[in-house]
Amino acid sequence: MKYLDFISSKNQFYQLSAPFSLESGEVLIDVQVAYRTWGKLNANGDNGVLICHALTGSADADDWWGDLFGSGKVFDSDQDFIVCSNILGSCYGTTGATSINPNTGNIYGASFPRITIRDMVHLQAALLEYLEVKSLRLAIGGSLGGMQVLEWALLYPKKVRAIAPMASPGRHSAWSIGLSEAQRQAIYSDRNWQGGNYTTDIPPVQGLAVARMMAMITYRYWESFTNRFGRQQDESNQFAISSYLQYQGQKLIERFDANTYITLTHAMDSHDVSWNRKDYQSVLQSIKQPTLIISIDSDASNPSICNLEVCCLAGVNKTSISLISPETFSDALLNG
Amino acid sequence: MKYLDFISSKNQFYQLSAPFSLESGEVLIDVQVAYRTWGKLNANGDNGVLICHALTGSADADDWWGDLFGSGKVFDSDQDFIVCSNILGSCYGTTGATSINPNTGNIYGASFPRITIRDMVHLQAALLEYLEVKSLRLAIGGSLGGMQVLEWALLYPKKVRAIAPMASPGRHSAWSIGLSEAQRQAIYSDRNWQGGNYTTDIPPVQGLAVARMMAMITYRYWESFTNRFGRQQDESNQFAISSYLQYQGQKLIERFDANTYITLTHAMDSHDVSWNRKDYQSVLQSIKQPTLIISIDSDASNPSICNLEVCCLAGVNKTSISLISPETFSDALLNG
Repeated sequence: MKYLDFISSKNQFYQLSAPFSLESGEVLIDVQVAYRTWGKLNANGDNGVLICHALTGSADADDWWGDLFGSGKVFDSDQDFIVCSNILGSCYGTTGATSINPNTGNIYGASFPRITIRDMVHLQAALLEYLEVKSLRLAIGGSLGGMQVLEWALLYPKKVRAIAPMASPGRHSAWSIGLSEAQRQAIYSDRNWQGGNYTTDIPPVQGLAVARMMAMITYRYWESFTNRFGRQQDESNQFAISSYLQYQGQKLIERFDANTYITLTHAMDSHDVSWNRKDYQSVLQSIKQPTLIISIDSDASNPSICNLEVCCLAGVNKTSISLISPETFSDALLNG
Repeated sequence: MKYLDFISSKNQFYQLSAPFSLESGEVLIDVQVAYRTWGKLNANGDNGVLICHALTGSADADDWWGDLFGSGKVFDSDQDFIVCSNILGSCYGTTGATSINPNTGNIYGASFPRITIRDMVHLQAALLEYLEVKSLRLAIGGSLGGMQVLEWALLYPKKVRAIAPMASPGRHSAWSIGLSEAQRQAIYSDRNWQGGNYTTDIPPVQGLAVARMMAMITYRYWESFTNRFGRQQDESNQFAISSYLQYQGQKLIERFDANTYITLTHAMDSHDVSWNRKDYQSVLQSIKQPTLIISIDSDASNPSICNLEVCCLAGVNKTSISLISPETFSDALLNG
């Protein structure tokens, strides 16, 4: 399967010796985490920076957020010990639907269990313990990555000293869940879906491409596409925006897996910081860390209102919240 | 094919004797128009009201806009001669992809030509001439219907005395075209699509359902779905919004045709009042009729900015423009 080629040779791997319990009660064994690090851990083990990637991202943060790496930049390996791991359920080296199930010897495929954002964060915490990181100076990520960042502040408040969730809500809205559902249904309607039990030779790429097209059109809003593409057409009278979306769909199917897309969008839908805790407002207000909230005002899938909700509720008096809206982050987020 | 059951027995039919030339240069013969009328034409033939339906609508305006019919209401058959016809390219009785091509004796299917909003309006004009309507007191419609309304003011300025385009842009934006394209691709990826040459027994309903789900999630915006569905789940842990969208998809496939969906979304994409005329601003400013522009602020597929653009450019000094934003219209528009 093509996407296997995309697991970076730069990855390191950490294999959990203990079984890994999911929020659902299911237990995964022999869980593997693909990760990358930059810089050196200091003697106190407290110069950690954790980068959490988005839906189709990987541990190769220097690929998709390359502009933020460098001396004096956000990710400065002279100062910090920067960690990025491929998230639980993804297909870039960490255990997920494309991994072999040790219990059966076959690929998990459709049998890979439902996971949550909290499961992802617990696995990252296990990795950081293995790496002897005692405390994070910053946890940062966009979209699905930002959901992890919020859960970091809530699950491990003593281990993370500042957070930067970007284009991420405190809970996935009905609108966003609806977008996820329509995208999953596009995959389900592919002739090669086979209830998720497709072969690696004949994956449901057409459905996955449609899902990506739908996602891409919502990652930016009206003005953004209209300014860039307008009503331009090519020589065959196809609109430029249509060609662009088709191209984005084709690009994704060369590097991603349909069951993984299903797994991770379900995880996003499950995201709700208040779940099994207190009421939504209290939970957000319990976050004590300085918080940088970045809202992409042209991102229709996570409209600014969601981010503002987090901003308003996260206890402004207790934290140092900044709200900025940098279009420049948008491209980076799309790739992460 | 199930949708054939949905052609209302209340329809009347008008068959053009002359060939009907499309903007593309192609010519359709034996074109048929399904239509409904309410009230009586007055002696001057100038009490016409034309209702233009949206993407999946039919001539049965009293079904999908029933609340607006009645004595003293918008559609008052005591006063006006109200006409609604199924649009060119649709599947409710007017010539379209599900009609028999007289040249071959087979259903047009995928061979039905590309059509434009202007083609639809020219066919409506032929019907009104047949019905001896000299002048319209009002042309009104939402979304695709409103596109027709704008073209009515521009193609037949002397025959229409007022227009009410609702949730309709002066030209389809890149964002809206992208949404259309993703929806068409969902249909194309259905195993039964067969390049559009599917049989009436095995239509590509799963792809069409996905397209409808995508459309439904954009017909209303974040707040609307979030307020209605929130994060409610049913007993099988399926989110209410997901069930709702699946239901909407299933409802449409029982009453609509995939090739027709392709035809009409392409027609919407072609919509640009400035095409083959002057610059966009001048064209909109040339509209002299009193104009009621209704913008649905929770409609993400035609964001208010598009409608405001029409409003700002349509020559405010010359016309009587009102801008209202009635959520109450939204449900009616969805059905029309």
